[in-house]
Amino acid sequence: MASKNLFLLAGDGIGPEAMAEVKKLIAAMNDKLGSGFTAEEGLVGGCAYDAHGAAISDADMAKAMMADAVLFGAVGGPKWDKVPYEVRPEAGLLRLRKDMELFANLRPAICYPALAASSSLKQDVVEGLDILIVRELTGGVYFGEPKQIIDLGNGQKRGIDTQVYDTFEIERISGVAFELARTRKNHVTSMEKRNVMKSGVLWNEVVSQTHQARYSDVKLDHMLADAGGMQLVRWPKQFDVIVTDNLFGDMLSDIAAMLTGSIGMLPSASLGAPDVKTKKRKALYEPVHGSAPDIAGKGIANPIAMIASFAMCLRYSFGMVAEADKLEAAIAAVLDDGLRTKDIFSAGMKEVGTTEMGDAIIAKF
Amino acid sequence: MASKNLFLLAGDGIGPEAMAEVKKLIAAMNDKLGSGFTAEEGLVGGCAYDAHGAAISDADMAKAMMADAVLFGAVGGPKWDKVPYEVRPEAGLLRLRKDMELFANLRPAICYPALAASSSLKQDVVEGLDILIVRELTGGVYFGEPKQIIDLGNGQKRGIDTQVYDTFEIERISGVAFELARTRKNHVTSMEKRNVMKSGVLWNEVVSQTHQARYSDVKLDHMLADAGGMQLVRWPKQFDVIVTDNLFGDMLSDIAAMLTGSIGMLPSASLGAPDVKTKKRKALYEPVHGSAPDIAGKGIANPIAMIASFAMCLRYSFGMVAEADKLEAAIAAVLDDGLRTKDIFSAGMKEVGTTEMGDAIIAKF
Ligand SMILES: CC(C)[C@H](C(=O)O)[C@@H](O)C(=O)O
Ligand SMILES: CC(C)[C@H](C(=O)O)[C@@H](O)C(=O)O
Repeated sequence: MASKNLFLLAGDGIGPEAMAEVKKLIAAMNDKLGSGFTAEEGLVGGCAYDAHGAAISDADMAKAMMADAVLFGAVGGPKWDKVPYEVRPEAGLLRLRKDMELFANLRPAICYPALAASSSLKQDVVEGLDILIVRELTGGVYFGEPKQIIDLGNGQKRGIDTQVYDTFEIERISGVAFELARTRKNHVTSMEKRNVMKSGVLWNEVVSQTHQARYSDVKLDHMLADAGGMQLVRWPKQFDVIVTDNLFGDMLSDIAAMLTGSIGMLPSASLGAPDVKTKKRKALYEPVHGSAPDIAGKGIANPIAMIASFAMCLRYSFGMVAEADKLEAAIAAVLDDGLRTKDIFSAGMKEVGTTEMGDAIIAKF
Repeated sequence: MASKNLFLLAGDGIGPEAMAEVKKLIAAMNDKLGSGFTAEEGLVGGCAYDAHGAAISDADMAKAMMADAVLFGAVGGPKWDKVPYEVRPEAGLLRLRKDMELFANLRPAICYPALAASSSLKQDVVEGLDILIVRELTGGVYFGEPKQIIDLGNGQKRGIDTQVYDTFEIERISGVAFELARTRKNHVTSMEKRNVMKSGVLWNEVVSQTHQARYSDVKLDHMLADAGGMQLVRWPKQFDVIVTDNLFGDMLSDIAAMLTGSIGMLPSASLGAPDVKTKKRKALYEPVHGSAPDIAGKGIANPIAMIASFAMCLRYSFGMVAEADKLEAAIAAVLDDGLRTKDIFSAGMKEVGTTEMGDAIIAKF
């Protein structure tokens, strides 16, 4: 049997509480289904900084590189707002993405039927929404050099960041988008700002070439990123798969998540390229919500995004499609039963805490 | 009497149709109120490229620099999708912004009561919405160098754009935001990605310093731009003035505009620094909507955004506050009367074309 070594990085804020529910789930799967997961734990973000002065230690980084999949909670909080830029909590996440070469970030924005009414958008605009944002995750302005603040004298400083994309980076991320579109509604919309950015011109060109060369069966549209943001808010159901760069993907996927009215529910997967020999991809699974320090430690955080991230892990890292389907169905079922954590509560429903929600999902699984 | 020389750049698509309504309005003001406007016209965008191979000619650029205010329609369309990057329609607008040093882009997102129901957001989320996005317009990734595509050989290219902000640029745009906040709800939210971008770190720092030094009476919040986008969609009424950089401002102001359900209604002003001697600011006024080539020439475009842009012109360039108020009231009045262009039509209202809408507003003025 292939190894199933998980590395758990719960991080800060509500990360550990959400991760605790996944740990129970893993134990249950090992016990009842003999799934054979092993799970080691490490530190990332503010808690790693507190422990050893870096947002992730080299030792934990090495474990992440060796693991079959990394489960990641959340990082950051006001406690670390003033730590040096290089060791801020986010640096741990960015190092994981970069060193593991997790270039493909998959962010589904799904509107759970039970929650359609809780969106700030009209119900008919979001009901049944199912889009997938494929965000480039190891390039662009996040990592381009120079990236620095220069002291110009006279009280003037200059802040510089560099947006860089090479052909191969655009090619591989658009390949992922086209492949995934084929398993869905066969429609990709690529977003950039080619009217202003040279990287946008190249992005547009390479996506079109990749399409023509290998995926001409898929419907491809191009949209300017600002217009794309508007269209997401106006009528999101026009989209199936959206492919875009690191920074636009950051903005657009958060907006898409918010449309669904259930940001506490949305998972993500960050994948590397398949290994030439083993065909295995390095992978990290992470809820879209952040560390939510204001509600941390109160037992009220919604663990669904973290559990749904584990479902993506089952699907993409271990090919356990039946189990992934079953876990996603269990989540939908507890929602249908009316169970709600505080963030998604509405009148007439039953408010539950983090552990009750986790237990209910495990019981249905 | 101070000069009132307008330079009109109607541009492409629906630009000329919308501008025609403003021309009627200017004529009416001259006739009936003796307002004393002079108006010259020039070419920008695709039509300028067709006429003389540049997105704006040097002669027209000189006229824009001399004018008391520029009124701008819209640029671009599929006809010019393949023209070289340097002379694409948008280059005309970008040159105007840069050469006139129009660093402050004011984009109000107002939800007209008569249209609250036509937003894709729930009515209670947008009803009464009145926020002002102050976008930096002459810096950032739009203009930073290097900005190029390099051929790396082996079929590989590299697209590069550079995000650059200097202290003084952040200082002056945040000054504009704080000043405007004092005339409104006294609340500024600054948005950047300081957790990823060095320019964001500097942005955050300089906005805070400017606040402490000169505007500590104004409430200031900082928000990460991705979280800001989410909050705009979740509960936009939490904002009063938002100040942000060129690229985030492009995305966020379009999203804010879409929230109101009336993108065809929203104006913008782009202002330079006051001249040391004359105290006059260079200024360009422009609807937020684009050239909408699909409906151009059909007489159905909504002229309200262009007319509302002229109202901003009256207010900011000529201190004609009473006239601006009256013009804005006239717009609201025709909407209350049930007149609607196609883009904002809903059952029970009266559908009208571009000229009828313009005439109705002028009649109420
Ligand atoms: C935490 C932060 C560095 C990160 C990002 O900007 O990518 C987050 O917003 C995300 O979207 O995963
Ligand atoms: C036309 C384009 C260059 C422009 C921009 O990106 O600034 C437009 O989207 C805007 O917001 O005014």
